[in-house]
Amino acid sequence: MSYTTEPISDITRERLMKVGTANVTNALLKRGFRNVYLLGLAPLTPEQGQLVGPAYTLRFMPAREDLDTMANYGKRDNLHRVAIEQCPQGAVLVIDAMGSTKAAAMGDMMALRLKHRGVQGVVTDGGYRDAPAIQATGLPCYQKQSAPPATAIAMHPIELNGPVGCAGVPVYPGDVIVGDGEGVVCIPRHLADEIAIEALDAFEYEAYAAQLIERGTSILDCFPATPESRAAYDQWVAAGRPAFPPLETTP
Amino acid sequence: MSYTTEPISDITRERLMKVGTANVTNALLKRGFRNVYLLGLAPLTPEQGQLVGPAYTLRFMPAREDLDTMANYGKRDNLHRVAIEQCPQGAVLVIDAMGSTKAAAMGDMMALRLKHRGVQGVVTDGGYRDAPAIQATGLPCYQKQSAPPATAIAMHPIELNGPVGCAGVPVYPGDVIVGDGEGVVCIPRHLADEIAIEALDAFEYEAYAAQLIERGTSILDCFPATPESRAAYDQWVAAGRPAFPPLETTP
Amino acid sequence: MSYTTEPISDITRERLMKVGTANVTNALLKRGFRNVYLLGLAPLTPEQGQLVGPAYTLRFMPAREDLDTMANYGKRDNLHRVAIEQCPQGAVLVIDAMGSTKAAAMGDMMALRLKHRGVQGVVTDGGYRDAPAIQATGLPCYQKQSAPPATAIAMHPIELNGPVGCAGVPVYPGDVIVGDGEGVVCIPRHLADEIAIEALDAFEYEAYAAQLIERGTSILDCFPATPESRAAYDQWVAAGRPAFPPLETTP
Amino acid sequence: MSYTTEPISDITRERLMKVGTANVTNALLKRGFRNVYLLGLAPLTPEQGQLVGPAYTLRFMPAREDLDTMANYGKRDNLHRVAIEQCPQGAVLVIDAMGSTKAAAMGDMMALRLKHRGVQGVVTDGGYRDAPAIQATGLPCYQKQSAPPATAIAMHPIELNGPVGCAGVPVYPGDVIVGDGEGVVCIPRHLADEIAIEALDAFEYEAYAAQLIERGTSILDCFPATPESRAAYDQWVAAGRPAFPPLETTP
Amino acid sequence: MSYTTEPISDITRERLMKVGTANVTNALLKRGFRNVYLLGLAPLTPEQGQLVGPAYTLRFMPAREDLDTMANYGKRDNLHRVAIEQCPQGAVLVIDAMGSTKAAAMGDMMALRLKHRGVQGVVTDGGYRDAPAIQATGLPCYQKQSAPPATAIAMHPIELNGPVGCAGVPVYPGDVIVGDGEGVVCIPRHLADEIAIEALDAFEYEAYAAQLIERGTSILDCFPATPESRAAYDQWVAAGRPAFPPLETTP
Amino acid sequence: MSYTTEPISDITRERLMKVGTANVTNALLKRGFRNVYLLGLAPLTPEQGQLVGPAYTLRFMPAREDLDTMANYGKRDNLHRVAIEQCPQGAVLVIDAMGSTKAAAMGDMMALRLKHRGVQGVVTDGGYRDAPAIQATGLPCYQKQSAPPATAIAMHPIELNGPVGCAGVPVYPGDVIVGDGEGVVCIPRHLADEIAIEALDAFEYEAYAAQLIERGTSILDCFPATPESRAAYDQWVAAGRPAFPPLETTP
Repeated sequence: MSYTTEPISDITRERLMKVGTANVTNALLKRGFRNVYLLGLAPLTPEQGQLVGPAYTLRFMPAREDLDTMANYGKRDNLHRVAIEQCPQGAVLVIDAMGSTKAAAMGDMMALRLKHRGVQGVVTDGGYRDAPAIQATGLPCYQKQSAPPATAIAMHPIELNGPVGCAGVPVYPGDVIVGDGEGVVCIPRHLADEIAIEALDAFEYEAYAAQLIERGTSILDCFPATPESRAAYDQWVAAGRPAFPPLETTP
Repeated sequence: MSYTTEPISDITRERLMKVGTANVTNALLKRGFRNVYLLGLAPLTPEQGQLVGPAYTLRFMPAREDLDTMANYGKRDNLHRVAIEQCPQGAVLVIDAMGSTKAAAMGDMMALRLKHRGVQGVVTDGGYRDAPAIQATGLPCYQKQSAPPATAIAMHPIELNGPVGCAGVPVYPGDVIVGDGEGVVCIPRHLADEIAIEALDAFEYEAYAAQLIERGTSILDCFPATPESRAAYDQWVAAGRPAFPPLETTP
Repeated sequence: MSYTTEPISDITRERLMKVGTANVTNALLKRGFRNVYLLGLAPLTPEQGQLVGPAYTLRFMPAREDLDTMANYGKRDNLHRVAIEQCPQGAVLVIDAMGSTKAAAMGDMMALRLKHRGVQGVVTDGGYRDAPAIQATGLPCYQKQSAPPATAIAMHPIELNGPVGCAGVPVYPGDVIVGDGEGVVCIPRHLADEIAIEALDAFEYEAYAAQLIERGTSILDCFPATPESRAAYDQWVAAGRPAFPPLETTP
Repeated sequence: MSYTTEPISDITRERLMKVGTANVTNALLKRGFRNVYLLGLAPLTPEQGQLVGPAYTLRFMPAREDLDTMANYGKRDNLHRVAIEQCPQGAVLVIDAMGSTKAAAMGDMMALRLKHRGVQGVVTDGGYRDAPAIQATGLPCYQKQSAPPATAIAMHPIELNGPVGCAGVPVYPGDVIVGDGEGVVCIPRHLADEIAIEALDAFEYEAYAAQLIERGTSILDCFPATPESRAAYDQWVAAGRPAFPPLETTP
Repeated sequence: MSYTTEPISDITRERLMKVGTANVTNALLKRGFRNVYLLGLAPLTPEQGQLVGPAYTLRFMPAREDLDTMANYGKRDNLHRVAIEQCPQGAVLVIDAMGSTKAAAMGDMMALRLKHRGVQGVVTDGGYRDAPAIQATGLPCYQKQSAPPATAIAMHPIELNGPVGCAGVPVYPGDVIVGDGEGVVCIPRHLADEIAIEALDAFEYEAYAAQLIERGTSILDCFPATPESRAAYDQWVAAGRPAFPPLETTP
Repeated sequence: MSYTTEPISDITRERLMKVGTANVTNALLKRGFRNVYLLGLAPLTPEQGQLVGPAYTLRFMPAREDLDTMANYGKRDNLHRVAIEQCPQGAVLVIDAMGSTKAAAMGDMMALRLKHRGVQGVVTDGGYRDAPAIQATGLPCYQKQSAPPATAIAMHPIELNGPVGCAGVPVYPGDVIVGDGEGVVCIPRHLADEIAIEALDAFEYEAYAAQLIERGTSILDCFPATPESRAAYDQWVAAGRPAFPPLETTP
């Protein structure tokens, strides 16, 4: 199996920048994918902004006391540090930390460098050290739980950009990562374009349905879309998405 | 066993709107109830406001690949959606999600509809999708952890308004749910009125004791109340709750 | 083994007030200590401020239904309450709650009293009740998860100021606790002075390296420090830490 | 949805009495079912014998201190006890214990009565009390872990023969339960006949392939079946399953 | 609170040697005790025999790398080793291992010495090393899971014969421990005599009821005892417990 | 880092065939290794015999619905199946199953083939299907818990003989695996010879000490060895290990 690590198209990126991870999981479920959401990970802050980009991966294995010392950590060929310099601009660094928060999968110095290099964000099923400082860099980052202990206490970097598991989800290099204010979803690369279209359509329909619900429509009549509500939506779109009448104010 | 699903009295609701869940657990412990707090659930935001109301329940069981598809989810008799239309005004929707966060127990469209219908809030031992949008509706909601994947991935709605377990606590229809900035407690219906009185009394005494402590009283002398401190409190109340002398400022 | 419960020196406190827990774990790892970070605990709010002080401990064991009632909780010799009065000014109250969040390890009345008495903060591997009110006192507190149920539901206080485990870390009376916006680390008492020096040095070097990274230096050339980057840093310090040139603005 | 609680056909039962649960999961995976094995449950003893029969269910919810006492447990309409008398001959009692082993889902008296009544066996995601005595009855039983505390300590029976979750798997009344020396699988009722045929075929082919492997055939050439190995197998069956040459003895 | 560490009476020991832990939990539930069974612990082998005796406790805290070395482990004042020499004849050694199986709570040398000294058995919420060899000594031992790593890797002995928690259950020195083929229960010391009487009565009634069930009596009519079945039992006992008619053989 | 995948020497193998995993962990702790025991894994049966050999690894990642089907499982280049044919004679197959027991890491057909090919045994932090049949092959195998569901349901083989984590322990190709009746330990390859010598010495001393303890020696005087007891042991060895006097029989 070969991996497409080419950047994704601008239009797909634009679409995915607007949608929620929930919309993406719906579209993937229709194609039979039930295990695509990285359960248990959260953004450092809900306001950090949307994350979209192809995955570049780093894999950890457990540390061994003689190999994983502060001294060895500082060597130039330490893969943890090499990953920070090699993750491509526009990509998302996905770190398989074996689900462990015993030690840091990344710290603020590394986040600062990634930000400077144009990396889009970082996702791990472990945790970070210096989380407040990482947040200050503006780099969208997702983790399980803060993990300030030194990396070498529990983790050893062993592979760059191979297929990994992260939070129980398969992530192949080049898969498209989407993160919003709640969490992260992984789209198999070959489906990214069509999922982006479908998720955006669902997202826009939901905004429409929300207007109906606020005006008293039953959930049974508009969400998920019925044939009738979908037809009405299509007409509304065709009509140029006219404004809804204002909500009645409770006196 | 029959369940009282009548609305609770205005005075009981008023009292419970003021107290903390901690006050309620104390009052229930005195009556021998040790398992009433829904451990591990948290409000979407601490500022979402107090939640009080009788429980209306929805129970999920695990999904099956052939039954739980996006197509079936949209049917009008899907109990998940029916619950949103049938949960009574003034009630709290309690969702038994088997403690699972593999898929969403509710999303923002449903929250919007519940809010419109006058439901007081939602409690689940699973999680929601679109949590930021749910929060924006102003509906007080409690969950274990965000769960954006489509409901049908892991959960199947199987019963409305029967007795359920939620976060390990028994919840019978009509039991009174109280949620504050920390979490949620369930009061057996027949005890709601007396617990409301006792919890409010404890809450008000604590506000008094806090004033003492800030002025140097030992915890041993005022909290929990001693016979002496209680007598002093009663006098203070009888005297019209006069203002305490101002706190000395550290120079 | 005897424990030094003397206050720590002003200079060590000052140094530790500046550093991150991540810096401390690095310095301890160099000395072979891999289990010093209290994993899974978090500050009530990241803004609560730094916590530094020698540990004074309280140990809980499981409750028994006949011993642990609301009535017994109010007795003057209840060790939970005695701890609040005896924890020394300047110390940190470390509560071994056996990792349980079934019941509260502390509430707001107790926090208020500790604050009044000059205690620096509280750390537990269980949880608190009235967490919003505790936060309002300004006392830096760390916990696993909020736990509003009455203490007597699940926990019995059994020992004051003995050696305990907290979140899997050994804590001896007098060990120096350091908490920041992420979490808590425990420094064996006899190492506190030297760790403070080393951690502060690392902290200050990192601030320097961050400036380099923001201007394009590779992580391989400045973090962790190389002999060359360290020499440059020492020169920069000797030169009076001159300001870096301003960051170029992206046009 | 209606449930077929009719007994299964003799031929399907005979087939399923021979196969392994692993064979059944393979056949179900081919039809898209990935969540059918009750992970984490084990037979009381691997020698207890194969279990096959349609599911009759009992569901528990958490206990409440005032309702769930030893006195109430003894009442004639306690559903836990009624289940023991109503579970049909030839069926398997499936107990949804919410995955909890805090209290017993069944004891030896009940097992003895089920055995006497011709029930085939019991499956729970909780545990039993008096497990050695249950084993002595000869009734095939599966559980998560022994749980001798009195049922009323933690569990309340709330429903008979409705759809339940057990060990995270959906079980509808009438679904066909198959248990072997390792564990338990649940076959959706409408698929039972065809799964029985396919699983038995796989089981018999495996016995053939084992003979090949013991004589040196590569796993790549016989398992899973290749078109060539399957053709050879079919010929071997058509030839009346002739005996293989004896294994060479290592000198 | 003072602890009675006197040996228990011969008659109480004799009674408890016959009953199941399930019988004991029932009798304690009637008195309001719901947390007395050490959930998750199992005998090394179901055939190891009944365990009865007053608790003598050993408490562990987490290890620290500089204190807990193989060298320090060998010192004469290491409390782990002292416990083996001081646990009284006739007592049960209860080891609070904080629920951790990262390192051994005991090994075969220690078990051999305890056996020689007349200690009745050992219970821990951690695990043992050399479990097969411990089993060979004939000493009844209960654990969570085998834990062969050296004790000093993760655990430090800190206290002898104080109150502890073991598997979440409070154990005070002198409490009476009862272990059977399934697990372990802890009886508060002051209740041991009456619980022994009641549990034995229940045990003997159950043996009687089993005979009824094997002959076709409904569970509703004999278990738990009804007033009628209890009267019949009392008559049967008064009549000298006559033999039941033989079971009919299925032809 | 390069890995030595040469077979280990006959004398080291012979020594390790005699010792317990507990002896090995002690010897490794003396050299600073605290994370070498694969906690939570157990032999299929305690009687399966000792396992010694260099590690050959197979790594799994999570399955994806479109890639991991029964059809793809049967392809000749499926790494799971290739591993069975390529694991060298004399080696131990170590399977990194990510700690998951959602699907089988191996079945009986594969075990039969490994046995035929002269592989020593298999270790996984997941589980097997057909465990009773695997046991019947006589191949020593360790797992976390039986996992009969088809591999493709949850796991995808991604790498042969690279460094992996197994049960949280780092395993590099060629590391020496030792399994006994309790569990499994991993010895870093470069230490295998010296650890074998030291562990065997400890094992033999323990057999000697057991004789002393059975005759009344305090644990403080013989285990761990004191200088005096060690000298006595050396003399006893030098004297040809004479028989101890028979144990007195309790009359």
